[in-house]
Amino acid sequence: MTQNIYDDPGFFLGYSQMARSIGGLDAAPEWPALKSMLPPMQGLKVVDLGCGYGWFCRWASEQGAASLLGLDVSQKMLERARNTTRAANIRYEHADLEHIDLPANSFDLAYSSLALHYIKDLPGLFANLHAALKPGARFVFSIEHPIFMAPRNPGWIIDIKGRKRWPVDCYQMEGERVTNWLADGVVKQHRTVGTLLNLLIEAGFDIRHVNEWGPSDAEVAAQPALAEERERPMLMLVGVQR
Amino acid sequence: MTQNIYDDPGFFLGYSQMARSIGGLDAAPEWPALKSMLPPMQGLKVVDLGCGYGWFCRWASEQGAASLLGLDVSQKMLERARNTTRAANIRYEHADLEHIDLPANSFDLAYSSLALHYIKDLPGLFANLHAALKPGARFVFSIEHPIFMAPRNPGWIIDIKGRKRWPVDCYQMEGERVTNWLADGVVKQHRTVGTLLNLLIEAGFDIRHVNEWGPSDAEVAAQPALAEERERPMLMLVGVQR
Repeated sequence: MTQNIYDDPGFFLGYSQMARSIGGLDAAPEWPALKSMLPPMQGLKVVDLGCGYGWFCRWASEQGAASLLGLDVSQKMLERARNTTRAANIRYEHADLEHIDLPANSFDLAYSSLALHYIKDLPGLFANLHAALKPGARFVFSIEHPIFMAPRNPGWIIDIKGRKRWPVDCYQMEGERVTNWLADGVVKQHRTVGTLLNLLIEAGFDIRHVNEWGPSDAEVAAQPALAEERERPMLMLVGVQR
Repeated sequence: MTQNIYDDPGFFLGYSQMARSIGGLDAAPEWPALKSMLPPMQGLKVVDLGCGYGWFCRWASEQGAASLLGLDVSQKMLERARNTTRAANIRYEHADLEHIDLPANSFDLAYSSLALHYIKDLPGLFANLHAALKPGARFVFSIEHPIFMAPRNPGWIIDIKGRKRWPVDCYQMEGERVTNWLADGVVKQHRTVGTLLNLLIEAGFDIRHVNEWGPSDAEVAAQPALAEERERPMLMLVGVQR
């Protein structure tokens, strides 16, 4: 069973105050890059793994998707999603992503934003998802980058010229990483880039696109705090095809 | 035209004294992982991009490959290869990998060890290579890992407990990196992992396996200096299929 940190009151409170929680997709700087990896939504049957507040489901519904299934382990997130992002063709369901039980051969697109780094049995999830997707279907997701997640004590260091550097260690040691982000004891699963991609390949997916998101000049101009994300890869956006 | 640093006298002298230059494939710690990604050699027509001293060509010949074409930009390396690793079915040829001119649809396997990070026009090389390979052929290569290559001033830092950390910066800024390794002014081309994989996909290759090499316990026991390579990804080994 994956840790359900989103139902921790302190975590939920902190998360609910983040820009991306208030502002939705457009407040997430990686959204334009992720969106560019998606197929046209018109008529698609879509599943969202870790749907959170339902921002993506609502967007996809507005774009003409035929139906949306949003899955999340957090009851609080689902409650908020049902209250704020509902539409006739969206269904929100409680699910532990380690044990999803979806009908075979039934979705045209799977989407997941920043959820997979919490999953311990990723091979199991990929196998279940592969079976639930139609041949040719896409799976597009974002995940914390292994370089961001690997360090024992993650944090920037400042060099003598005031420039930021991101020290990496423990990269080859895969497994649990416990951080104190919004709440103490948030458990994530570190895997190397190679392992992540090989798990997808072994599950039967074709790798179509890999984007290690970084901000554009315009994004840094609009939001100078993003400049540090030019120094390291913080997120990985991956598009694969069944 | 790619910089031909291997014909720089100081570089060549330094390189010729490295363990992997003296001991061949078995002196390269990543060789077992790279070898495991190769198909059986029996009967294959093989091209080696950046063949150096010809260690791989000789090994492949001994394993039953039908023919070997070793390409290198360094005349000194080719001279040494012709003197020390020749066999009736190996041909060594001078070539700038940015402008290879190979017969179409004629190789079963392409191999390259630690050469591609010198190449500026990698899309051109991948396109030429794709055309030269038969359908279903494999391309297996190693390259310096982008995390290893990205930093402005690459080098370990030691934390207060004496542990090594590898500071990353400039990751998203692709382009030239000039280092002083064996000789001053060695020019390499930094690309992100995403860019490297996307170039392969856009050239028509299927990604089959990605290995960010790290040493095993047995390798660290035999060669304790390798322990630091558990902290960072230093090399990428990639296997693709045409």
